Amino acid sequence: MKTDTPTAGTGQHCAEVRRGRPRSEAAEQAIFGAVEDLMAGGTALSELTIEGIAAAAGVGKATIYRRWPNKEALLVDVVSRLEEPLPEPTGAGARADLIALVDHVRRRGLAKRTRWVLKAALGQMQTLPELYTAYRDRVIKPRREVGLGLIRRAVAEGVIRDDLDLELLNDLLMGPILYRSILWDDSDLEDPDLARKLVDSMLEGLAPR
Amino acid sequence: MKTDTPTAGTGQHCAEVRRGRPRSEAAEQAIFGAVEDLMAGGTALSELTIEGIAAAAGVGKATIYRRWPNKEALLVDVVSRLEEPLPEPTGAGARADLIALVDHVRRRGLAKRTRWVLKAALGQMQTLPELYTAYRDRVIKPRREVGLGLIRRAVAEGVIRDDLDLELLNDLLMGPILYRSILWDDSDLEDPDLARKLVDSMLEGLAPR
Repeated sequence: MKTDTPTAGTGQHCAEVRRGRPRSEAAEQAIFGAVEDLMAGGTALSELTIEGIAAAAGVGKATIYRRWPNKEALLVDVVSRLEEPLPEPTGAGARADLIALVDHVRRRGLAKRTRWVLKAALGQMQTLPELYTAYRDRVIKPRREVGLGLIRRAVAEGVIRDDLDLELLNDLLMGPILYRSILWDDSDLEDPDLARKLVDSMLEGLAPR
Repeated sequence: MKTDTPTAGTGQHCAEVRRGRPRSEAAEQAIFGAVEDLMAGGTALSELTIEGIAAAAGVGKATIYRRWPNKEALLVDVVSRLEEPLPEPTGAGARADLIALVDHVRRRGLAKRTRWVLKAALGQMQTLPELYTAYRDRVIKPRREVGLGLIRRAVAEGVIRDDLDLELLNDLLMGPILYRSILWDDSDLEDPDLARKLVDSMLEGLAPR
């Protein structure tokens, strides 16, 4: 098993390259892929073992323990990396940025694998409370902060009224698309105009004018 | 074990009473309670066995098999019964009925046990696809139909505009409260005025008028 041997011959100074980088990107990818496959295939988090993951990834247990102290730490990384970076500001104002954020969630929900793994993780986090806490702190909270920052800017730009609670606004804007993408399997997410429709319907209001 | 003996001395005609009724309400309650406890305690659906459920409920395995052909059928009933009946029309118009429906979901989300069990079921249904199908047909679809019927009435009453897709309207109205109640644990659901705020903000729109 050579996957942990640092790649030779790159000509770079290893001290710089090694810091914060996996010794072997390939081994790490194989481990992440194995856990995702196991979760997407229906293995409960509580049934996952370092041994089983190592076997599925085709690496030794030591390769896993060299990077993660325990199963929980590995699972946090697996679930975190399924979250793609949030979209950058479009430069076209708060309404366009809100649509871009909702569309980001829509596209994430379209990826069946992501959906299954997140659903499995969400449903089983009660068996691993540390995983839930880490996921909340590393994934949920930062995403919520980005959403709230965007909403604050939309209020400042006069796109959103200033008399509503920010948390409520966040749930109003993010709730429908998260509901459609995470909760049920058969929801339609394919309409590329869905995010715009959602945001505009919400901004304009559902009551007739 | 006497829990399956039909209760004597009620003075009613048994033929009538027995049809569609459990032989022993107490045994059934014990079985439901045991499964809910096991799920809320973190046992994965795939790890549940009829044997384990019988032991936790203090009944014999035969008592379970007399009512349910297999584990999936029992689990469908466990998850279905956590859904309380949807609210009846208030008689005060479509806006009031929409608020009542959203408030129903809010109150359901407040019950920590319900939330955990539903989350566990949702996350693990991929391991039991028949359970997912049954849950979708018995719980999700009927609830969605009630929601859509209410929205149709709101459109007919002029409370909601008539130029939006009904499914989109359903997700806009139900998404935020379901997001807040099922998805995350730390969301605030205690405000008794939350449902009204949600519905009114949505009807009025988030953009300044």
